[in-house]
Amino acid sequence: MRRGPLALGPGGEFDRLRAIFARLGAAARDLGDDAALVRLGGTTLAVSIDLSLEGVHFRTDWLSFKDIGWRATAAALSDLAAEGARPIGVLVALGIPSDDGRRTTDDAVDIMAGVGAAARSVGARVLGGDLARSPRYLVDVCVLGIAERPVRRSGARPGDGLWVTGRLGGAGLALATLRGGRRLPRALVRRFARPAPRIAAGRWLARRGARALIDISDGLAGEAGQLAAASAVRAEIALERVPCWPGVTPRAAARSGEEYELLAALPRRFGERDARAFRRATGLALTRIGACTVGHGLRMTDHGRRITPPPGFDHFPAR
Amino acid sequence: MRRGPLALGPGGEFDRLRAIFARLGAAARDLGDDAALVRLGGTTLAVSIDLSLEGVHFRTDWLSFKDIGWRATAAALSDLAAEGARPIGVLVALGIPSDDGRRTTDDAVDIMAGVGAAARSVGARVLGGDLARSPRYLVDVCVLGIAERPVRRSGARPGDGLWVTGRLGGAGLALATLRGGRRLPRALVRRFARPAPRIAAGRWLARRGARALIDISDGLAGEAGQLAAASAVRAEIALERVPCWPGVTPRAAARSGEEYELLAALPRRFGERDARAFRRATGLALTRIGACTVGHGLRMTDHGRRITPPPGFDHFPAR
Repeated sequence: MRRGPLALGPGGEFDRLRAIFARLGAAARDLGDDAALVRLGGTTLAVSIDLSLEGVHFRTDWLSFKDIGWRATAAALSDLAAEGARPIGVLVALGIPSDDGRRTTDDAVDIMAGVGAAARSVGARVLGGDLARSPRYLVDVCVLGIAERPVRRSGARPGDGLWVTGRLGGAGLALATLRGGRRLPRALVRRFARPAPRIAAGRWLARRGARALIDISDGLAGEAGQLAAASAVRAEIALERVPCWPGVTPRAAARSGEEYELLAALPRRFGERDARAFRRATGLALTRIGACTVGHGLRMTDHGRRITPPPGFDHFPAR
Repeated sequence: MRRGPLALGPGGEFDRLRAIFARLGAAARDLGDDAALVRLGGTTLAVSIDLSLEGVHFRTDWLSFKDIGWRATAAALSDLAAEGARPIGVLVALGIPSDDGRRTTDDAVDIMAGVGAAARSVGARVLGGDLARSPRYLVDVCVLGIAERPVRRSGARPGDGLWVTGRLGGAGLALATLRGGRRLPRALVRRFARPAPRIAAGRWLARRGARALIDISDGLAGEAGQLAAASAVRAEIALERVPCWPGVTPRAAARSGEEYELLAALPRRFGERDARAFRRATGLALTRIGACTVGHGLRMTDHGRRITPPPGFDHFPAR
């Protein structure tokens, strides 16, 4: 899911999710992480579901239908990356507007082609699906994986370093560019339309003893607050260290959502030499942006000066 | 899923699904059954996804939000029943209209209460969820189960008897009553709003050597055609033997969708004594309505006279 329902973040969606899962009572367990973990014999299954709606998560004039399928699937697979899990398969429910002269059959085929390509890119397959007539396009993706060394968002301890994969801000820049009616440069198209779920990165970090992992779907600041709340630590982040997409300020990078990079709490002994090994293994940068300390909440500084963290993204803002 | 995409049924939705899954190519396997099966070590996981949309699968003036949650979950669990599987858990994506003075927070909580109750009724739990703002309500449920003796829809052989659980036609009668603006009698409310997924029945039949199982979500006639196509047999059904809800004709019962009873192909030796044992174990009737023979398609008779089978339900009728 995009947000951990039991973590102590702010915002209307959180209050709503808390109310919902509180009501579920004993029927609900293992909530409050990117994916749920289920023990099955000697195996730990990681599962998650991720809903993408036209007009909320995507626009059909900004992305091709194949890209829409890829992006929805990558968003769901990102939840498995944040558990250090290896994907097995995906199930997909599609809502497709009824035929009114438009080529909606082809649209559904194109969406599923994107779903299949994203699944194949991480060694997963399409296990099943459902299809219904809907006033707007919708793509709901449920992902299944195996977590050999599951990493929750709750295991960080004071003293751990906070590291982030890749560079942040590309998705936000792409959105701003599209909203301004301008065309995306090729690198941003790839970043925005075909985000690569950080499966290999998550598994590498899990093997190297990551204490906590979370994917950056709702912005670095928001996710760092989630990780801190779940782990009962304070997250301290130096804004000037945040690795930024070219042309993006650190502040914009820290609030950019749907980045699908990983934020990791790693033991103090994990250092720059290990980060270089990570880069050799995955092709991605791994940047230390702060640390966990005793306390709670998120403390953000800019060249040593305390600043107010930027807000996260919320589908249901509090009124 | 509501329909097996690779089976040879008629209709627009089938053509569409075939095109989609053909395009998936090597990424897709095990499609064409109620649930997908995944081998994991010594365990067989059964998974399925089922999308319920306001205005297509439910109306908020016909059902309470708790009933909407229950019904969507029961529909998905019915796919596990049709594999003879034991449910473990469900993941749920909700689309909820944005607050415009209506009590939509409570609506989401109520839907999830229904989801949780349906899951608990078969020993499953809510593993996770997602929530988004949506112009209309939507409930997408992904179910996970363990199939100790998986039963596909493709294992029927000539000579097998065709049996159906419970009584058919209640859901269709409820729909007709609601469409006519009349109130539902209490028994029909239960049948329509709180259908019981036939988990215990499916597991019992799997243990007793069922060759093929399918759930009756799109009408008996349509599902019998699916089972016949997948098994490469002819299904022969005597309409007058179909067990009917009080006040429903056999013809109406045979076309009624969203019944969530099971159609089973059982070896010839399975007889009335076994059906009584089934009834003692599950509290449900099990009625022999026909047999599988050499050939293909569905052959329906009414007191020995050949009749044209009623059509199934299709969300995407061919133009």
